[in-house]
Amino acid sequence: MTAMLHPAPACQPVASTRWRYADEAVLARDTEVAVEWPVNIRYGPLPYAVMMATPLDLEDFVTGFSLTEGVIERQDDIRGIRIVPEAEATTVEVTLAPARLRAHLGRRRSLAGRTSCGACGVEDAAQLPRAATARAMPVAIDAASVAAGVAALRGWQPLHARTRSVHGAAWCDLTGRILLAREDVGRHNALDKLAGAVLRARLAAADGFVVVTSRASYEMVEKTAILGAPALVSVSAPTSLAVTRARASGLTLVSVARDEGCEVFAGRLRG
Amino acid sequence: MTAMLHPAPACQPVASTRWRYADEAVLARDTEVAVEWPVNIRYGPLPYAVMMATPLDLEDFVTGFSLTEGVIERQDDIRGIRIVPEAEATTVEVTLAPARLRAHLGRRRSLAGRTSCGACGVEDAAQLPRAATARAMPVAIDAASVAAGVAALRGWQPLHARTRSVHGAAWCDLTGRILLAREDVGRHNALDKLAGAVLRARLAAADGFVVVTSRASYEMVEKTAILGAPALVSVSAPTSLAVTRARASGLTLVSVARDEGCEVFAGRLRG
Repeated sequence: MTAMLHPAPACQPVASTRWRYADEAVLARDTEVAVEWPVNIRYGPLPYAVMMATPLDLEDFVTGFSLTEGVIERQDDIRGIRIVPEAEATTVEVTLAPARLRAHLGRRRSLAGRTSCGACGVEDAAQLPRAATARAMPVAIDAASVAAGVAALRGWQPLHARTRSVHGAAWCDLTGRILLAREDVGRHNALDKLAGAVLRARLAAADGFVVVTSRASYEMVEKTAILGAPALVSVSAPTSLAVTRARASGLTLVSVARDEGCEVFAGRLRG
Repeated sequence: MTAMLHPAPACQPVASTRWRYADEAVLARDTEVAVEWPVNIRYGPLPYAVMMATPLDLEDFVTGFSLTEGVIERQDDIRGIRIVPEAEATTVEVTLAPARLRAHLGRRRSLAGRTSCGACGVEDAAQLPRAATARAMPVAIDAASVAAGVAALRGWQPLHARTRSVHGAAWCDLTGRILLAREDVGRHNALDKLAGAVLRARLAAADGFVVVTSRASYEMVEKTAILGAPALVSVSAPTSLAVTRARASGLTLVSVARDEGCEVFAGRLRG
């Protein structure tokens, strides 16, 4: 008989020793750390990728991952998601709509195992994902909405509050009110989870914007553009390629977004 | 005639608009951002991976990447490195020793495009890299050396001082004196660059330890263990798998390493 397997937890206590240099204090304790866990993603019977992720909101994760990887174009392309706990990994089996599965199988032959960070697994730079098509009308977000979204974000990071080691991604409406937020040890994963949550909640991504706790690298810009949100706000700084790609795709990119101000690298804010 | 191509810079100024909410001040300025740039890695004539990296210390990067990917086992396995600037990427051609190239070509057939984060490109969790073999005698580092290494690190991050957006990885001797440090937009890349620099400087990795500015995820533990350093010190927190892998491989893992103290998750420090 096989032992019953339970879903992996999102965080777990580990024994640690805390040193304080000033008084040479050494304290044995339990610290909660974020769980990093292999998630096997399969389409139909075929393995596609294994992602190291926090095993939380996995339906959202594979939905968003499937969107930003280009495997699906909309929520209805997924007919079912089955989470299969295993001893040392979790397998997520995605059932695609038949036409979408055929398209995926045809496309798969020409890909060298692309995975969620957008570059890993690609053997040659010529295969890198292309910038999203320019949108006709970039949306200008209010500066006050950006400030509101960033200020609200910490209240939506319960796992980070316990572990101090996970990234958060949130979707705000145009007033800066957070409607959805997701967490993960990986910043790409947190954004994929959020994208999946937006799709599954049938929200119109264009009616709000994305706030992330991390830096803005080019993949974060691409994922936001693919989701269809008009702006990405990142707490930390952007890379050169993130700025270039945001400008090319008509995405508003706001970075170094803190309580006292922010910096706009692509598009514009309204005062 | 082809235009002469120069190496890509490590950072570059981009036009931005700084908002300060309190007084509604809006300031147009140039901000230096870290360059994120596609680096094509080839062994002999064959493309292997494209990594998004800061185009700085690329010889160190491909050397360390080759080590932590298992393509080489020692510095002498590399016969030459050629950096080829291109318009929108840099290609790095690595000439392996003939026996090593044969081993790589044989091994390559059984890999599904594994790349530097250790999981991306892997199609099934059963293919994940295995924990390094346990070492017989873990080395206990002095707590004072950890404090010294962490305190010295910020002086070795010139690119971060300009851009506030890159990770650093340093190798310290057993007293905590930093001998080498490298920077990159990616934390895996920064550690790979450091590993390559240690190899190319013909330093004995076992005679010191590694300090990184980032979190400790399992790949950071694996890379440190493969390099052969006895301890990894991370400024931010560890993941569950990092702790498990460090304990399995005899690596001392010190995290949340700040000016006032640190926390030991695997192995031990000496007072």
